[in-house]
Amino acid sequence: MSRIRAIYHIESAAGDIEARAHTIAVEQSVEMPVSAITDARVLSDIVGQVAEISEREAGGFRVAIDLAADTVGVDPGQLMNMLFGNTSIHPDVVLADVEFPEDVISIFGGPNQGLQGWRDRCGADGRGMTCSALKPQGLPPKGLGKIAHQMAMGGLDFIKDDHGLADQSYSPFADRLSACGDAIATANAQSGGKTKYVPSLSGHLDQLRHQVEQARAYGIDTVLVAPMVNGLSTFRQLSRENPDIAFMAHPAMAGASRILPPLLLGKIFRLMGADAAIFPNHGGRFGYSPDTCQQLARAALSDDFGVAPCVPIPAGGMTVDRVPEMLDFYGPDVMLLIGGGLLTAGDKLTEQTALFTEEVAKFAYG
Amino acid sequence: MSRIRAIYHIESAAGDIEARAHTIAVEQSVEMPVSAITDARVLSDIVGQVAEISEREAGGFRVAIDLAADTVGVDPGQLMNMLFGNTSIHPDVVLADVEFPEDVISIFGGPNQGLQGWRDRCGADGRGMTCSALKPQGLPPKGLGKIAHQMAMGGLDFIKDDHGLADQSYSPFADRLSACGDAIATANAQSGGKTKYVPSLSGHLDQLRHQVEQARAYGIDTVLVAPMVNGLSTFRQLSRENPDIAFMAHPAMAGASRILPPLLLGKIFRLMGADAAIFPNHGGRFGYSPDTCQQLARAALSDDFGVAPCVPIPAGGMTVDRVPEMLDFYGPDVMLLIGGGLLTAGDKLTEQTALFTEEVAKFAYG
Repeated sequence: MSRIRAIYHIESAAGDIEARAHTIAVEQSVEMPVSAITDARVLSDIVGQVAEISEREAGGFRVAIDLAADTVGVDPGQLMNMLFGNTSIHPDVVLADVEFPEDVISIFGGPNQGLQGWRDRCGADGRGMTCSALKPQGLPPKGLGKIAHQMAMGGLDFIKDDHGLADQSYSPFADRLSACGDAIATANAQSGGKTKYVPSLSGHLDQLRHQVEQARAYGIDTVLVAPMVNGLSTFRQLSRENPDIAFMAHPAMAGASRILPPLLLGKIFRLMGADAAIFPNHGGRFGYSPDTCQQLARAALSDDFGVAPCVPIPAGGMTVDRVPEMLDFYGPDVMLLIGGGLLTAGDKLTEQTALFTEEVAKFAYG
Repeated sequence: MSRIRAIYHIESAAGDIEARAHTIAVEQSVEMPVSAITDARVLSDIVGQVAEISEREAGGFRVAIDLAADTVGVDPGQLMNMLFGNTSIHPDVVLADVEFPEDVISIFGGPNQGLQGWRDRCGADGRGMTCSALKPQGLPPKGLGKIAHQMAMGGLDFIKDDHGLADQSYSPFADRLSACGDAIATANAQSGGKTKYVPSLSGHLDQLRHQVEQARAYGIDTVLVAPMVNGLSTFRQLSRENPDIAFMAHPAMAGASRILPPLLLGKIFRLMGADAAIFPNHGGRFGYSPDTCQQLARAALSDDFGVAPCVPIPAGGMTVDRVPEMLDFYGPDVMLLIGGGLLTAGDKLTEQTALFTEEVAKFAYG
């Protein structure tokens, strides 16, 4: 029977770590005193097993626990439940990494479109892709459409909604879709460009489905979701039902400290179908280190995971003058997202956007 | 226009706190440089406003930020997004509390059944209610049914599934429902009791709906969900569609450190429709303090919130000998949940369960 290996970082006194590791193995499997279990199969196959304990250089311990894949079944929510459900309540434990067996990987299956899907959509081969965000929250659709037009005239590959844009009274989803979609189509006709709109979806499964249908009817095949807001089961189902759509994942509500970002935003979002994953770049508004960002990008793209690659999208307070450094750091398989750093240009939004896209184009490879 | 007041606890140097508070107010509303916003309505109505900053006795600062209710609309996921979406990524900020205006409370509406719904279902007036959990993960339905029968013979009010029981190959939901439902019905017929079964639901909205229908067809009107696994939008929709069902909320994936438990498990779960909320009691397997537990129970039950009360269910490593102390601490409007502490009795499971229910019955009020 296949097992999922979960890696935890645990703060603990050295004398307590074995007992602590055993307690977590029980908590994340049978969740009851093992001495009271009489069923032989449960004892041999289902109770979590401590596989390794080692000291971490940074302090504390690294504990590997093998969990029965059968307890997860085919539900992404249940996967998170078995990996970290109750243990998420312990403030001194971090879910650091997960090694998935092949059968679990093929159950979830990863992105439908992946890196190549994004490249095909914008025609960008051998260079980083570009993206900006429609803001601010609170503008009516027409106001957002005006910004979308100015940005598209600057030659972006993708323009996404701010993840705060939902289905609000002052900017209903359907109205925003047509206002921004029309504005970008007009700009493309004027410039000969092929900028694509990435609207933000929200709500429960029925609402998300309806929004995807509205987008598809409008000729849109790229959307933004926030898997930790929607719920991973919901996100995976939406991805499964819409293999022709490229999904960009936003890190809202993904927290910082208790599930390591390379695991959650890189590996798990990808496994559940994220075709691209936004994350806070180092040196921006959030505290990720260069090392965390590097690991996250690698987890999103690595060949050894057996599913389509997911495009890393470093973001969060980025500016045009950081483009060369970011492309050096991430290489060409990346999408750069600059939002506020373009919007501060005001009347010069198109020119500032063009500076961004031209800077990225300089770094063409191959 | 109504505003939602979000309270954050922030670690910061005193000289930086004003700028820090302003940054969060912007991040959780327009998420772009305010200087680049030209729309007057966005500036006056939508940009988050810092309302109060004070030092905390425990160190760090308490910052109150007023957010436009219009940005939330009617979606629970979007509420979390606006309260903590991006800021959840800052490890030095905790979402500590939220003051909801009346219009937002009535949009979400809280529990359908609440405290009285649970009391009506079990006939327990003026005393704490009792509950245990079916474990371990990995048993086939028949094995779980046997335990359910033994527990029901001990006179419990409710028997819930372990939250790890999903729709697994070794114990499919439908088979578990009938095995445990039948076992409890048999015990009730033998003992004259009225123990109720609380099956655990999992998956995306369609799957959850199907499971509720299966349960209802079986005469069951109490279910267990994990709102942070399902997603709050999904949970709220399920609650809205099933006003005759009492929902028990499990804290899996609710984390410990970044959204204070009285807010998340007490107030927010209740607002979204939790009729009862399980949480880790102090002195058990998890690290909540007595003060946190007291605040959580108060948030779940308080009159001043304007929606039906939600039953607090302290749990997590509880034992029968703690019953008097727990009832003293929480009073009668509580459901006590003891799982492993009964199961360790092995062959004496019914007797140990009866000890538990008799101990609680001694503390009848009124």
